Amino acid sequence: MSDWTLELDLRPGDGPLFRQLHAGLRRAIADGRLAPGARLPGSRTLAKRLGVHRNTVLRAVADLTADGWLETVQSSGTFVAADLPRRPPPSETTGPTYPLPPGPPPDDRRPPDDPAILSFTSLPDVERIPQAAWARAWRRVLGRHGRVALDYADPRGDRGLRAALAHMLATTRGLAIGADDVLITRGSQMGLYLIGAALLGPGDVVAVERLGYAPAWRALAAGGARIAPIPVDEGGVDVEALARRCRRENIRAVYVTPHHQYPTTVSLTAQRRLRLLDLAVEHGFALIEDDYDHEFRFDGPPLFPIASVDRRPVIYIGTLSKVLAPGLRCGFVVAPPPVLERLVARRLDIDRQGDGVGERALAELFAEGEVQRHVQRMRRLYHRRRDRLAGLLRAHLGDTLDFAVPAGGMAIWARVNPAVDLERWSAAALARGVWLMSPAAMVADDDPPAGLRLGYARLAGDTLTRAVRALAAARRDGRRGG
Amino acid sequence: MSDWTLELDLRPGDGPLFRQLHAGLRRAIADGRLAPGARLPGSRTLAKRLGVHRNTVLRAVADLTADGWLETVQSSGTFVAADLPRRPPPSETTGPTYPLPPGPPPDDRRPPDDPAILSFTSLPDVERIPQAAWARAWRRVLGRHGRVALDYADPRGDRGLRAALAHMLATTRGLAIGADDVLITRGSQMGLYLIGAALLGPGDVVAVERLGYAPAWRALAAGGARIAPIPVDEGGVDVEALARRCRRENIRAVYVTPHHQYPTTVSLTAQRRLRLLDLAVEHGFALIEDDYDHEFRFDGPPLFPIASVDRRPVIYIGTLSKVLAPGLRCGFVVAPPPVLERLVARRLDIDRQGDGVGERALAELFAEGEVQRHVQRMRRLYHRRRDRLAGLLRAHLGDTLDFAVPAGGMAIWARVNPAVDLERWSAAALARGVWLMSPAAMVADDDPPAGLRLGYARLAGDTLTRAVRALAAARRDGRRGG
Repeated sequence: MSDWTLELDLRPGDGPLFRQLHAGLRRAIADGRLAPGARLPGSRTLAKRLGVHRNTVLRAVADLTADGWLETVQSSGTFVAADLPRRPPPSETTGPTYPLPPGPPPDDRRPPDDPAILSFTSLPDVERIPQAAWARAWRRVLGRHGRVALDYADPRGDRGLRAALAHMLATTRGLAIGADDVLITRGSQMGLYLIGAALLGPGDVVAVERLGYAPAWRALAAGGARIAPIPVDEGGVDVEALARRCRRENIRAVYVTPHHQYPTTVSLTAQRRLRLLDLAVEHGFALIEDDYDHEFRFDGPPLFPIASVDRRPVIYIGTLSKVLAPGLRCGFVVAPPPVLERLVARRLDIDRQGDGVGERALAELFAEGEVQRHVQRMRRLYHRRRDRLAGLLRAHLGDTLDFAVPAGGMAIWARVNPAVDLERWSAAALARGVWLMSPAAMVADDDPPAGLRLGYARLAGDTLTRAVRALAAARRDGRRGG
Repeated sequence: MSDWTLELDLRPGDGPLFRQLHAGLRRAIADGRLAPGARLPGSRTLAKRLGVHRNTVLRAVADLTADGWLETVQSSGTFVAADLPRRPPPSETTGPTYPLPPGPPPDDRRPPDDPAILSFTSLPDVERIPQAAWARAWRRVLGRHGRVALDYADPRGDRGLRAALAHMLATTRGLAIGADDVLITRGSQMGLYLIGAALLGPGDVVAVERLGYAPAWRALAAGGARIAPIPVDEGGVDVEALARRCRRENIRAVYVTPHHQYPTTVSLTAQRRLRLLDLAVEHGFALIEDDYDHEFRFDGPPLFPIASVDRRPVIYIGTLSKVLAPGLRCGFVVAPPPVLERLVARRLDIDRQGDGVGERALAELFAEGEVQRHVQRMRRLYHRRRDRLAGLLRAHLGDTLDFAVPAGGMAIWARVNPAVDLERWSAAALARGVWLMSPAAMVADDDPPAGLRLGYARLAGDTLTRAVRALAAARRDGRRGG
């Protein structure tokens, strides 16, 4: 192993060279850049690197050793004295000297940072991804196409991957599109951010489902737009309420999750889908359709997206976060080319482009059918887990939770018996090792629903049982306590 | 290989099931989702997937075959008729139905999209990266840590990579910092964007070098800030001009490239560095120090960054784009933790986090000393290429270009003889296969310098000679022509 060469800032004001070197080394030790016990480069190396005579180095080292900063171990080298107090980098005392805007509020959407705590997340099970095939594809791309894949490239993303995604959408979701209708983004999050930053500005209004996905709202508001919540019921977003709102104010965009509404899992009715399209054309708003877990429909075939009926008013957003892994950061936007052009211009400002090697490797996984087979496997697995969670909830929390089994997706939405103090229950559950996301984190106004989104995709059999039992026990704690 | 299962939108209004299936398949063919010659799934598969009797499928297929939409090849399967006209996806006619902001101006910073055209880019030579070690590290990380590395994670980036970067900066650049002072970003571009979006807003002013890097200015203006150009001379940015400007208006941030000024390659004098720090503290502005190619200093040791003198007023930005590859998209920001907290909050809105597997793999490359050795190799290589380009320019364009050999970096900045029509010369050069970036793309006002930034890092011996000779020939073309 070779490490970085130590560089020192020699200051002419510090006198003769050996004194400058002495001061430079002392500064490096005093401010923690050279830690106690760290080995110094050899005197010849240091002399060569600094362009000084070796005797100059030897003299400085001898002086520092005499002062107790360094110690020389026979036939082993020179080290920073091990008994010096360790200096942590002075982060806390280093500014800034300029004013800052207010800090962000605490994040109430993330479970505590403790791997022992279970959470009913609706994230996918990443342990079953086709790991070996993926690593092979990555190595192959780096070896064969590294020169191109590591260079500046098309900010829309690798054309092969865009073609693979277009083919998937055409075959499984009824979207008659080609590669140039697709923009690859870093998760659906970036797709939403680009829309918020590039198409919407201060004074604009974006209508969203009142119960929904808060990170999407923050992204859509990035350019200064205001969020307007629209009620959600068993048929999805209340399109007539939206129609009334459109007559009152100028809505520039509407953000919906029609396939499996987040967090309630309901599907938007066919009648409402068509009405939504009509409203979009009539009022000239962009209809942002987030189809985040399309693949996982268990009861009957998946519903085709609204964009398959009429693409003109729709910006369609999807992701591989649920299909493969959230850490992959691969999402996509389908929209008419002039719309994509605006999003791409903003993308160039943010991070220029995606990950060339990763995108090409992913395209190879599609070409090999690995993604397709993985989706089939996971669909069967999540189907079983959905049924298992539904059974467990009925058996252990039948008097507390009321739910309809969702036709697909990765979570059950359960209404909580109004007599239950949800906050107290959540605290008791956390004490028993299960974290529940507060419904306050899923509402666009200050009237949170008495509901829980219970994800099952990542919880294998035993864990699922253990988590539900802990919830039930926490419920009994509450009864005893109150 | 297995492909996606074809999904069809069967519409109850279309009558009996076989008619719905007939109409659904015809729609898929008509709008290009099923291309001429595409193979249909087997009738059993289709029947099972759609939940209908196999006879229903057979009836629909028979009718479509009779109509000429499908053709059946004995013992091979059923295909979409090969002689149907191919329908390109109707991208051009699909909207949008909502108004758009104006489109972006054309990008004048990119060479034409033709691999045969040479350009004096200052990008690194990516052919020499430690490819095999990198692919090994990537596979190892996916195999051993995939479950964690592919999940939601710390938006500041992998802690191991942050520690490796902090160690590099402490050893080679005199920054007494630890992992928690570092935020990993997607290239320095994203670091600048986060500053522009999170710390600066409408009405704020950012001072920049008048000659400089336009993508940085766009990122810094992302939140609505206004750009104020400050002159640059042989000593770097004119700090006294900045001081006068600070007295006139409230400057919130100052963006500089002190080590090798972009595009002029000069180093900011020691006196100006200290004065800049004093001004930053006095006027309360954030001093953004972009140290984009620190590693490549050939004449003497690299200059320590301004942040090594006093970190409190400085936001320090670096990148691995020049060290390894631009397509890697790995940069970093060093700033006091409360500043990083603001940037991280915006990062969460944009794309949540970086690439977990890639960051860990990179941390392993640092631990193995691969990055360190690569930097040493490339420093020697670029040193030779700098000297070679300087020699070629003197020999072939001595009467046209006037330059000082830069102490480091990846480009020579050459002033063009005022008698030369640079636009005409550039056009002639392009006709001879060499693209020159217009100086208008490197200036923050409308007074472009008569200068050329000629990068040498990516041009190996023969290519360098060929490119300079083409430039000289284009110069003669111009003389003859005019």
